[in-house]
Amino acid sequence: MTEPIFDLAHLGHMEMLTPRPEESLDFFIRVLGMTPTATQGESVYLRGWDDYEHHTLKLTGSKTSGMAHMAFRARSPEALERRVAALRGSEFEVGWTDGDLGHGPAFQCRDPDGHLIELYYETEWYKAPPELKPALKNQAQRFPARGVNVRRLDHLNCLASEITPCRIFFEKYLGCRLTEEIVMDDGSEAGIWMTVCNKSYDFAYTRDHSGARGRFHHVTYALDSREEVLRAADIFLENGVFIETGPHKHAIQQTFFLYVYEPGGNRVEVANAGARLILAPDWKPIVWSEAERKKGQAWGLKTIESFHLRGTPPVDDAR
Amino acid sequence: MTEPIFDLAHLGHMEMLTPRPEESLDFFIRVLGMTPTATQGESVYLRGWDDYEHHTLKLTGSKTSGMAHMAFRARSPEALERRVAALRGSEFEVGWTDGDLGHGPAFQCRDPDGHLIELYYETEWYKAPPELKPALKNQAQRFPARGVNVRRLDHLNCLASEITPCRIFFEKYLGCRLTEEIVMDDGSEAGIWMTVCNKSYDFAYTRDHSGARGRFHHVTYALDSREEVLRAADIFLENGVFIETGPHKHAIQQTFFLYVYEPGGNRVEVANAGARLILAPDWKPIVWSEAERKKGQAWGLKTIESFHLRGTPPVDDAR
Amino acid sequence: MTEPIFDLAHLGHMEMLTPRPEESLDFFIRVLGMTPTATQGESVYLRGWDDYEHHTLKLTGSKTSGMAHMAFRARSPEALERRVAALRGSEFEVGWTDGDLGHGPAFQCRDPDGHLIELYYETEWYKAPPELKPALKNQAQRFPARGVNVRRLDHLNCLASEITPCRIFFEKYLGCRLTEEIVMDDGSEAGIWMTVCNKSYDFAYTRDHSGARGRFHHVTYALDSREEVLRAADIFLENGVFIETGPHKHAIQQTFFLYVYEPGGNRVEVANAGARLILAPDWKPIVWSEAERKKGQAWGLKTIESFHLRGTPPVDDAR
Amino acid sequence: MTEPIFDLAHLGHMEMLTPRPEESLDFFIRVLGMTPTATQGESVYLRGWDDYEHHTLKLTGSKTSGMAHMAFRARSPEALERRVAALRGSEFEVGWTDGDLGHGPAFQCRDPDGHLIELYYETEWYKAPPELKPALKNQAQRFPARGVNVRRLDHLNCLASEITPCRIFFEKYLGCRLTEEIVMDDGSEAGIWMTVCNKSYDFAYTRDHSGARGRFHHVTYALDSREEVLRAADIFLENGVFIETGPHKHAIQQTFFLYVYEPGGNRVEVANAGARLILAPDWKPIVWSEAERKKGQAWGLKTIESFHLRGTPPVDDAR
Repeated sequence: MTEPIFDLAHLGHMEMLTPRPEESLDFFIRVLGMTPTATQGESVYLRGWDDYEHHTLKLTGSKTSGMAHMAFRARSPEALERRVAALRGSEFEVGWTDGDLGHGPAFQCRDPDGHLIELYYETEWYKAPPELKPALKNQAQRFPARGVNVRRLDHLNCLASEITPCRIFFEKYLGCRLTEEIVMDDGSEAGIWMTVCNKSYDFAYTRDHSGARGRFHHVTYALDSREEVLRAADIFLENGVFIETGPHKHAIQQTFFLYVYEPGGNRVEVANAGARLILAPDWKPIVWSEAERKKGQAWGLKTIESFHLRGTPPVDDAR
Repeated sequence: MTEPIFDLAHLGHMEMLTPRPEESLDFFIRVLGMTPTATQGESVYLRGWDDYEHHTLKLTGSKTSGMAHMAFRARSPEALERRVAALRGSEFEVGWTDGDLGHGPAFQCRDPDGHLIELYYETEWYKAPPELKPALKNQAQRFPARGVNVRRLDHLNCLASEITPCRIFFEKYLGCRLTEEIVMDDGSEAGIWMTVCNKSYDFAYTRDHSGARGRFHHVTYALDSREEVLRAADIFLENGVFIETGPHKHAIQQTFFLYVYEPGGNRVEVANAGARLILAPDWKPIVWSEAERKKGQAWGLKTIESFHLRGTPPVDDAR
Repeated sequence: MTEPIFDLAHLGHMEMLTPRPEESLDFFIRVLGMTPTATQGESVYLRGWDDYEHHTLKLTGSKTSGMAHMAFRARSPEALERRVAALRGSEFEVGWTDGDLGHGPAFQCRDPDGHLIELYYETEWYKAPPELKPALKNQAQRFPARGVNVRRLDHLNCLASEITPCRIFFEKYLGCRLTEEIVMDDGSEAGIWMTVCNKSYDFAYTRDHSGARGRFHHVTYALDSREEVLRAADIFLENGVFIETGPHKHAIQQTFFLYVYEPGGNRVEVANAGARLILAPDWKPIVWSEAERKKGQAWGLKTIESFHLRGTPPVDDAR
Repeated sequence: MTEPIFDLAHLGHMEMLTPRPEESLDFFIRVLGMTPTATQGESVYLRGWDDYEHHTLKLTGSKTSGMAHMAFRARSPEALERRVAALRGSEFEVGWTDGDLGHGPAFQCRDPDGHLIELYYETEWYKAPPELKPALKNQAQRFPARGVNVRRLDHLNCLASEITPCRIFFEKYLGCRLTEEIVMDDGSEAGIWMTVCNKSYDFAYTRDHSGARGRFHHVTYALDSREEVLRAADIFLENGVFIETGPHKHAIQQTFFLYVYEPGGNRVEVANAGARLILAPDWKPIVWSEAERKKGQAWGLKTIESFHLRGTPPVDDAR
């Protein structure tokens, strides 16, 4: 048996596209409570108060919505080299970039559905300016006490026309581990949840029935408690933010979730996982059947139709 | 630069000694809400409702209190072999054992202060009997709804007469990473917090001023929220369990803590970390000075004297 | 202007009928965490850990489900006499009874829909036996640390074929105050929430479209936090209790709710109101329109159909 | 037996004096999350997001700190007249005032220790301007999502050189009910907790050993959960607000408390009572002995010395 790959450390950031950059920015700063660290071109770089890097969200004004890229940080320069070596010459390789604000050189590749993925190691640690210095020095930034106060990037979810090739790609080339999945009665995979660390997932892929490719489902920021997710619902309601579904508990992964749409149309989740971690290095994936999925969420909430159908960009823009 | 070691997956379990085995067992089962999985000789094997292994606590009747051993699970058989190779021939080596109920062969070693440590890979996954089957299959066992309902083993804390040799041992031989520490004005290390995973610590070592060696400070089980830690305080109060300090928030590691003594005299903590994880593979240790430590806990609580002095076994028994 | 009536102190208890008395009793004791105080005939008397009286729920084995009676405690003997004087000779009068286990003489009446209501003043304060003595003497009983741990009776909800006569009855004869209500486009009242104390409601009446009379919708026990309501959902799930809807937040009254069916078929709610109290003695009722009601719950959850239709006893038994 | 008096509805507001009006105002608005409704002379009128009246805190710039007056709202005009009739001609009478911003005519009196108390009925309900309109119309104002977000005035605490005359005054003239108290070994009362509604206390009086009269101990605003009190502690820490003690749970009244000093020197508490209410109209006061008080708080925290000694204004200013 080959030893498992542990070369990626964690999901690093994503670049979100928005056709309404000003309103989206107001949402992320004032309502979600995020902090901007830089602006460049059409992009603003943002982070939660406990994200240790320069940014975890790059928000870019664009003609439409969706995800421009996602990025994983490698565990070491050598680990990055190993992943690059694996990808070199494959159909997924795109090649090196010089990096971006906040991180060094990144190796780009595309998953089988076309989403752009970057791998990097060199990163810029966030240094809080005086007015944002925290009282406790083991914290990246002071607690903002504004809006929803999202703590840190947790995971993201993409749509893909076929799930299996994506799973194999992430396992074989990036060393990601499958923790839970949905397998339909016909044997096809309808959803996968994968991790590179102790979070029970860094990302999920679910099936896109639209025929479009490379679409995005949602990005999730972690809050410290389920109580904070409930309070976030109050805050979204007060601010006229559309709540798609939740708060409720997923059966899959048991995440306590709340989904909204940011003004650019992208779905954003705030969530809490309690003390749940995947500590076992040889975790055996949990397989959910078509019938089990139909049961709905943990406490009986039926999954809302839009959750299965809606992605960004809208299908017409994706073509 | 050498690539960092990522060979250990997580803290696996500890063996606690108690001179009052029946009362201790009642405490762990009825008050903490743990589940016994086996009994052998003087030992009962226990686990929290989300611990995936056969046990995380081996409770053994004995003449005195303290910790008989702690154990880490390796990430793979190869990873275990690498750690064994590093320890072989060192002054810390003890040698292989056949294992125990719940896990396979374990390599034993002793840290510089004499605590016994086991490394193992093969483990027995907990299989819930019908009456303890959970409603959601991604959970090890049904939620007990009894007492404090501890979720999973989080970390432990040992005392040591000298901290620095212990830190070096854990870094060099086991590949543990230092996340926070206390350095006194004279340059000596007074406390270290180390991790092998994304938890901000799997174990801590703090200085033992008694002259005794190999002593134990506390073991910690995680709860899902700070609210559950507060409720635990109510439950301890109702059950006549001595509360030493808390609930409050540590400045170091920001853990929301509550410390009690189990009937055998060992200190037990229930805690919640919110959504805090150490995701950076190159985390830079946070160093707290003597003056900072004297400030007390995060919200101003003065650290109680017994917390600095009391360990198990009592000093007379430890000699 | 006449001075408002403040003669009733609070909702005291209800008698629930169940065709499955053993299973219902197991539900209330083991799952909800209630304490039985007495058994007499087909009835078991139960209470939450902070209910100060002998019981707040009288559970009675019967051919069908539903509510046999509800009871309010008066503020003083004189206040009780004033209410009796008001009811004497009215079409609602039933007359005095000698009382029951736990309380003294009660004056019975029937609301316009036929629900039986008792008014009493003399009551038996709960005295905890040694094993249930609380650690803090300002608490009725020790915290059980079992199941959902309901704290105290909060409110109940009845169905009525016509709401307006019920509202007038409660205002005029009992001095209850309307805090919120639903008024349909045709001007008819579809739901009323009334209080006799600082809780925002002691009871609600909503319209029964079945043609049956005297039916029951649900009884609610209060928990200390929204987090406990979420944990209750986990516990119901683990115990195979049917969750009808929730946890979510009502728009009306902003109650954080969770509805289940007890084994006898009656709907039971556990809820938390945060720090919300109606302190104004001249509170102006909040009126919700038909359109507002259709919007669903506070965070967008659509109200489940059964919530509007299902009451106990079943319609066939009610005739 | 005389029928108990139920003439006061609730604690209405207090006037706090501060020698640092600008910093105090910043504390109440930015850190506590309160909303200013008016400014007049040296005073700013403030409220929590769920306070239904024009204000619950009148903050007045002054040479020193302390409380200028507190006010109770009567249940009806008739109830107010009854209380005035009781006070007329007594040594406590001060007389009518025309009222203030936010409320109508008020009858003033002084308790035996000299604190100024106002009774009023006519009040101005808060009307939120468009930008502060809540999403749910049964809420006074939109949730601010800023700082600690205090919900509503809960209670206050004064110091008095002798407690017994104060208790008798509040019982006899105002109809307040004693819910808990401390009685020393010599039979003297050291602290009283009294209510006029279902809150377990609207105010407390504790003994002032300084020889000064008319001093103030603290005012308390309610939050919705214990979790929010914990988060408040984080926010106070980040903002350099001095935390005197807490978060912890009082044995007396079981309030989950957190005490800080606002910039003017007055003590302010944020607290949560869970679902605890005093529903019994004939509640029997809980009496705590000197020995019980010495045990400290519910979970064992020793009561901090300053909590017994410090009041506002400072003793030198009070003379």
